[in-house]
Amino acid sequence: MALNPDRLFPIEPDARRVARELYGEVAGLPILSPHGHTEPKWYADNEAFSDPVSLFVRPDHYVFRMLYSQGISLDDLGVPDKHGRVANTDTRAIWRLFAKNWFLFRGSPSRLWFEHALESVFGIDEKLTEANADDIYDRIAAALPTPEMRPRALYERFNIEAISTTDGALDPLAHHDKILASGWKGRVLPAYRPDAVIDPDRGRDGFVERVAQLVALGGTTMSWEGYLEAHRVRRAYFKARGATSTDHGHFNAMTANLSQGDAAALFDRLITGPITDRDTELFRAQMLTEMARMSLDDGLTMQLHPGSWRNHDRDLFAGYGADKGADIPTATDYVKALKPLLDEVGNDPRLTLILFTLDETAYSRELAPLAGVY
Amino acid sequence: MALNPDRLFPIEPDARRVARELYGEVAGLPILSPHGHTEPKWYADNEAFSDPVSLFVRPDHYVFRMLYSQGISLDDLGVPDKHGRVANTDTRAIWRLFAKNWFLFRGSPSRLWFEHALESVFGIDEKLTEANADDIYDRIAAALPTPEMRPRALYERFNIEAISTTDGALDPLAHHDKILASGWKGRVLPAYRPDAVIDPDRGRDGFVERVAQLVALGGTTMSWEGYLEAHRVRRAYFKARGATSTDHGHFNAMTANLSQGDAAALFDRLITGPITDRDTELFRAQMLTEMARMSLDDGLTMQLHPGSWRNHDRDLFAGYGADKGADIPTATDYVKALKPLLDEVGNDPRLTLILFTLDETAYSRELAPLAGVY
Amino acid sequence: MALNPDRLFPIEPDARRVARELYGEVAGLPILSPHGHTEPKWYADNEAFSDPVSLFVRPDHYVFRMLYSQGISLDDLGVPDKHGRVANTDTRAIWRLFAKNWFLFRGSPSRLWFEHALESVFGIDEKLTEANADDIYDRIAAALPTPEMRPRALYERFNIEAISTTDGALDPLAHHDKILASGWKGRVLPAYRPDAVIDPDRGRDGFVERVAQLVALGGTTMSWEGYLEAHRVRRAYFKARGATSTDHGHFNAMTANLSQGDAAALFDRLITGPITDRDTELFRAQMLTEMARMSLDDGLTMQLHPGSWRNHDRDLFAGYGADKGADIPTATDYVKALKPLLDEVGNDPRLTLILFTLDETAYSRELAPLAGVY
Repeated sequence: MALNPDRLFPIEPDARRVARELYGEVAGLPILSPHGHTEPKWYADNEAFSDPVSLFVRPDHYVFRMLYSQGISLDDLGVPDKHGRVANTDTRAIWRLFAKNWFLFRGSPSRLWFEHALESVFGIDEKLTEANADDIYDRIAAALPTPEMRPRALYERFNIEAISTTDGALDPLAHHDKILASGWKGRVLPAYRPDAVIDPDRGRDGFVERVAQLVALGGTTMSWEGYLEAHRVRRAYFKARGATSTDHGHFNAMTANLSQGDAAALFDRLITGPITDRDTELFRAQMLTEMARMSLDDGLTMQLHPGSWRNHDRDLFAGYGADKGADIPTATDYVKALKPLLDEVGNDPRLTLILFTLDETAYSRELAPLAGVY
Repeated sequence: MALNPDRLFPIEPDARRVARELYGEVAGLPILSPHGHTEPKWYADNEAFSDPVSLFVRPDHYVFRMLYSQGISLDDLGVPDKHGRVANTDTRAIWRLFAKNWFLFRGSPSRLWFEHALESVFGIDEKLTEANADDIYDRIAAALPTPEMRPRALYERFNIEAISTTDGALDPLAHHDKILASGWKGRVLPAYRPDAVIDPDRGRDGFVERVAQLVALGGTTMSWEGYLEAHRVRRAYFKARGATSTDHGHFNAMTANLSQGDAAALFDRLITGPITDRDTELFRAQMLTEMARMSLDDGLTMQLHPGSWRNHDRDLFAGYGADKGADIPTATDYVKALKPLLDEVGNDPRLTLILFTLDETAYSRELAPLAGVY
Repeated sequence: MALNPDRLFPIEPDARRVARELYGEVAGLPILSPHGHTEPKWYADNEAFSDPVSLFVRPDHYVFRMLYSQGISLDDLGVPDKHGRVANTDTRAIWRLFAKNWFLFRGSPSRLWFEHALESVFGIDEKLTEANADDIYDRIAAALPTPEMRPRALYERFNIEAISTTDGALDPLAHHDKILASGWKGRVLPAYRPDAVIDPDRGRDGFVERVAQLVALGGTTMSWEGYLEAHRVRRAYFKARGATSTDHGHFNAMTANLSQGDAAALFDRLITGPITDRDTELFRAQMLTEMARMSLDDGLTMQLHPGSWRNHDRDLFAGYGADKGADIPTATDYVKALKPLLDEVGNDPRLTLILFTLDETAYSRELAPLAGVY
């Protein structure tokens, strides 16, 4: 099962030759990862990963969501419920369950990623099966405590030049500070992700409290102007720690460009209530334009990740909380949705706007006709 | 024109080799056809097909719809009008008209199906033309009365293990009973298709009468509870005759999960009138959830066939009635539409839900993230 | 950089062989261009193109829109603003700017078109770069005044049998008359494009004036009946000059089939105001059905070009006017939108309706199931 060096390349010989040439030109370049899906704590503490399950199964919602879809309970897989309770702590048993069902991943990106990691990081080129589950578990477990398997060593081995994490607007960025203070030369950059203080639908109950916290961190007051200024303060705080971008995971790409008076009135309604679905959608839309305007001033690249229906599985969400893989792509309009933002700032060369599709491929170029810049 | 054994396979040699290997592994397996588009009467009576036109032209709306789209009248093709009147009974003349226009089918699935049948069933490997139309007509006509061309013989020759028909909720299933009583070992299973007693848009005039007929067959009364119970009785009746599934041809995949009180009020409105388009859509939506709940109890697999705009051609519908090929695919939402049903029963392992796309390919797996089961 | 004769063909050898065979069968045939994007004035006056920029950059919104999207100003490219003012008349400097940024067109249709023209018309098979910009400019400029580079000579060299232009309903077609009077045998046919007198959104201010002008040209009066009759008169005027088609660039494919009384009332509202967005959409929709009805009588093929969001870039439109490349494809419904028109005339064999997709490929055949004819 050794990895085929031509995997993912076209099968036709001439096309494959071109693919090899193109890949050859970039294969040795350092990695610049703008959306890296790693935890800053890993690099800050640089501790060994504890066991194969904590590395490959529990943190990967692509993996456990697939198993769940085939009737395997998240409890059996050791995924914590929404209170943090873990029903199964026997990592070896969880690994066996994973190995027994590994065939389910045929044709999936998860298989490509896992087998690539297994061979290139651990030197294991056998296919995972129920029969060799214990053996592979033992070999991974034996390797994890070694120095070359620590997060910083892996960062260096993978030839990463910079990697961005995604961090809430209220995050003190203590891990990033610890990395900076350590003198380690790796660049782990925060990205400003203010969804929780912009989108009342990320938990309406706590929204006002979160906004109050933002305003407190910003040293401003509870008003539309104070709220905007607090965002500016936090963006500067992130930028001082290396941030080069913001990131926005809205349900759709809708933007708006209200007058500041109307925006202030909308903000007041959100704080004092009662609010409607239309209010929350309009506020998200307005805030994208506000964020774009701030980007003109502080130069942070603006990333949009719209189009995912999060937490679509009611029972899964009720039992295990958010971001457990039950997210479903939806068709996303950009042409109408982005017009208010683009009319306001689309022709300003200071704005860099990156739109992600749901497979995480940026297609700013395909969407280039939308904007005067890309 | 002998059939190329590699037809439909990729042209690239390596990809073709893989396709041949994969096909070779399944080519000899028996056929399990969950949606077979054949008439139970064929197997019940096991009579010879009368002539080439009655076999290949008149019952195939893909064939006559293509000819109609190029200006050939359905009357000339011997398709019955909505009163059952057939304007042209000269099957040889119809066959000549079909042959003369056979070139129109280039690149169509109809061509693949027809030429496959012609060669593999009748041993005719010439291309149909105006010149050989009479000769091919005669050869098919000569073969049809032979024992090996009877429906049951073809079922066996095609190595069918089971085939499902699609049958209205009010259908007495007399043909299925006749097949069962005959001792023939073929398995021709009914599927419960209750569209006509669920969807007032399948003819509003007769809807109340059809519901009354359902309730009478169920031995219940004209009420929401009686209506649901009548469905349960009919599902059991179908299941006793081999049914393993239900099938639902709604316009879209919309589902709803009303309280039983609201559902009962909606049912009462549908019976006593007047009703709105919103009522009929909501009733269809609610009934999908009710059908899913019943599937938990009786184990029938639930099939959805949404997304076809039926009878789009006003004049064709007015003159020749329903299901004459003037059905057009429409974009279908599943993510929002199915959520009410999935929230209610999506995580119950007793539910098997199959969603068909408009090319009749089940893609339950692609849509697997929607449901806890597939 | 000589053009590869297999460009645009599949890379796989067997597929390429088939493509070569198919292309070989049509490569020598004369061109019948139903939507040719050329100016009738070119053929009428048959003057030399003045310089490389006026030929390749300024009139091609695909070219300058791409450069604009990368931050190059339209002023620097010599594109006239909405008042017709040209900020940069130094065509050699514009050409150098174009050449310097030519790499941006990699993978674009513009590159294919331009390099094809450069080699096949001017015999230049080098890749345009900043270094050879002046040399290529000089070679093109030297060739343009020669007789074989005049529009009529190019028409003949390209083996065009007929080419259609697109002309407003109010256009006197003087250029077409001049071509006809000249005795030149080229066929440059007008197409009736009445958008400006049908769609109030093409400038609401002047709409009533334009309708008044149409009515005056038609010799009728300002009423619904007079308006329709004026269209008939203008269609006949176009047809007398060779027109074989009409062309409609609506935002969407929506059609309507109002009673003549309701249509007349709608027309009166549009003339006397005030009007709503709903009114303008409904009027466009109604007029498609009216145009289709007129096609039954005069035999003009009806072309629809829906689905483009024109002038999406607010600032570009404000500064430079319409049709400067800031048009974005939008998803277009045909199935629901065309039903009113098709119910009225879709089964009449006298109607030929061509639907364009946004890449300008007619797919009347794919959409054939919509209509009784194609």
